Amino acid sequence: MEKLECLSCKKQFRLDVFTPFCPVCQEPLFYYYPDDSKKTIDLNKDHPLERYADFLPLKTFDPRLSLGEGNTPLVKLEGLARKFHLPATILAKNEMANPTFSFKDRGTAVAIQKAVSLGIRKIGTVSTGNMAASTAAYGARAGLETFVLLKEGTSPSSLLSAGIYQPRLIAVEGDYPQLYYQSFALGRKFGIYFMNSIDPFRVEGYKVTGYEIFRQLGLRTPRAIILPLSAGGHLLGIMGAFLDLLRAGTINEIPVIIGVQAEGCSPLARAFAAGAERYERISKARTIAHAISNPAPAAGNIVLRVIRENKGMIVAVSDEEILAAQKTLAEVEGIFCQPESAAALAALLKIRDALLFKEEDSVVLIITGSGLKNLGALDSLNMTVQNTNLVNLEGTLRSLS
Amino acid sequence: MEKLECLSCKKQFRLDVFTPFCPVCQEPLFYYYPDDSKKTIDLNKDHPLERYADFLPLKTFDPRLSLGEGNTPLVKLEGLARKFHLPATILAKNEMANPTFSFKDRGTAVAIQKAVSLGIRKIGTVSTGNMAASTAAYGARAGLETFVLLKEGTSPSSLLSAGIYQPRLIAVEGDYPQLYYQSFALGRKFGIYFMNSIDPFRVEGYKVTGYEIFRQLGLRTPRAIILPLSAGGHLLGIMGAFLDLLRAGTINEIPVIIGVQAEGCSPLARAFAAGAERYERISKARTIAHAISNPAPAAGNIVLRVIRENKGMIVAVSDEEILAAQKTLAEVEGIFCQPESAAALAALLKIRDALLFKEEDSVVLIITGSGLKNLGALDSLNMTVQNTNLVNLEGTLRSLS
Repeated sequence: MEKLECLSCKKQFRLDVFTPFCPVCQEPLFYYYPDDSKKTIDLNKDHPLERYADFLPLKTFDPRLSLGEGNTPLVKLEGLARKFHLPATILAKNEMANPTFSFKDRGTAVAIQKAVSLGIRKIGTVSTGNMAASTAAYGARAGLETFVLLKEGTSPSSLLSAGIYQPRLIAVEGDYPQLYYQSFALGRKFGIYFMNSIDPFRVEGYKVTGYEIFRQLGLRTPRAIILPLSAGGHLLGIMGAFLDLLRAGTINEIPVIIGVQAEGCSPLARAFAAGAERYERISKARTIAHAISNPAPAAGNIVLRVIRENKGMIVAVSDEEILAAQKTLAEVEGIFCQPESAAALAALLKIRDALLFKEEDSVVLIITGSGLKNLGALDSLNMTVQNTNLVNLEGTLRSLS
Repeated sequence: MEKLECLSCKKQFRLDVFTPFCPVCQEPLFYYYPDDSKKTIDLNKDHPLERYADFLPLKTFDPRLSLGEGNTPLVKLEGLARKFHLPATILAKNEMANPTFSFKDRGTAVAIQKAVSLGIRKIGTVSTGNMAASTAAYGARAGLETFVLLKEGTSPSSLLSAGIYQPRLIAVEGDYPQLYYQSFALGRKFGIYFMNSIDPFRVEGYKVTGYEIFRQLGLRTPRAIILPLSAGGHLLGIMGAFLDLLRAGTINEIPVIIGVQAEGCSPLARAFAAGAERYERISKARTIAHAISNPAPAAGNIVLRVIRENKGMIVAVSDEEILAAQKTLAEVEGIFCQPESAAALAALLKIRDALLFKEEDSVVLIITGSGLKNLGALDSLNMTVQNTNLVNLEGTLRSLS
């Protein structure tokens, strides 16, 4: 019998995808692996969900439900290291190279396998961004009915990247965190599996990114991994991968995991700085980094605990730092990501002195999503276009060369 | 000494990246491989440019210039086959999963290696779309000065996906094909290597897609490969891969290669239908498929010849068929591509009866670029959003469930 576990009270519960919260602590539940049998990486398999199957909560793998997620590039950022005089090896894990152009596909891919294996016919999510597009795409491919609940007033243009897959789009007026929790109650009622941000199978899917980094570095652990932090699922997944490897005796130490929030909405960075065990909900979020603008992160208190227990960090960066980092990644390394993803670089530059990186260290920035998702945010980009014609082109090129 | 070859007059010329056209025939030149020594795939290597190095024109590979292109997914489209009662196995080769979200990165990745190895410091391209973004990104990462020549009047929003990498953007008034040819003359003058659509190294880069398909199918040849057709470089590259394998004795037969144009600008489909050896330039292009709207394809006459010699096909599809195919790919398979990419599916549906696919056949559609590149084209998407609030959400879900 499959079980979920509460990391706070350590109680276990029979698997129920409709209610992924502890009835005692109200904290999110996580997948419970009963046995500690030997787990191995099967390098004969190409697909990550088969390659790392021993570490994942799936008994079977149906390739028809996969869109080819994962196996994303890990590239060195030498130009960046040079520009900022960083002694360590800086790398980008490019999660934009997933089927719907964001890291969310890794989580959706696992959750959808589970949904179909359980005979579920309706899925849903509460999101206006990457998670909406990812869930709608995988739902479409699996032939499931997909419900996307979004904030009222979301612009039609930002709906298109999910709307193209023709899910049922429902704009809901009212408090967003309340909508998030209410979705589970209604999902149970109508048989809709809401695979929201901290869904236990979604989180397990994010672990694969950690295993891939470990393998791509030649079975070595990076000194640090820096990633944007919203609800907490992505961070818990990636940290979970290294905790798994630690428990299995494969590694001796996990990386320093660094979650990054936007200053205009940083409940977890504030709590971390104050040494608090629980975060305080933010009443008014003000940041251009919408994808990490989460006033009440569902796994926030768990993140605070595991970050503290495992010597991680949570930092906040300003919108200006984020936009500058986005521009720098594109100009110096040819990587065009969402502002939210660039927050990882902004954080690296902010905390470099605190971390005292050494030459042999490697630091991985998780590039979570494509800059194409919100070109609108670039209106401020200082883009100079020279105008000329065929006759004068030679002169124009001469003046620029 | 490296050489380029004219496929028309069979003359060879000393390599000169600034002049990739035959002085006799005016046709584009291709990379000439002098020896027919044994070529092997090195599966111990992860990076495609190392894995298929024996088949590529690079003596060395500098990972610092790569953004992690290639290794893209090949996924079965069973829902689509079911929907349209296609007996064969239909697959999508997802080239959207490249660093700048299109197939162009494969070509740029090879051309940039060559540029740097030759000590070139300035590169350029004539493009307003995928090739502009790709060239600008790789140029930025390599620290080269990058010139992007574009049509006057290109909207700022469609410039952003290249502009973010901060190349020199030059809008040129005048005839576009003329600009294309003039760019080479000026490039030579100012030392700017214009890696345009049929650049010989770019074309060699596209071959890797062919090798990957062959490997992903378990070292088998698909019955057919269908892809959008503009200047002809992509098609010649992919066909070249299979011709290489045929020459090496690895396979006995190459796939049926099918190039797809938009009816509103289909010089090659017209010439193919008429059995002509040379195409006639289109005076007025009218199609929403801008990325394949090429009134004077640079490699057009060569494409006509190799397609004829190798039993390929060139077909034209209407804008309506293209947009319907784009919608279908998203709704049925969760794949959101550019309209131009969906032309491959539109063509499959159009010629299915002519090809008499059998159950054991596999047919690969090349999905060339991301739908996120021009969300504007989706304004006509029939997207229904239900409006409700937290109190009425239950009723809304009940009515939809």
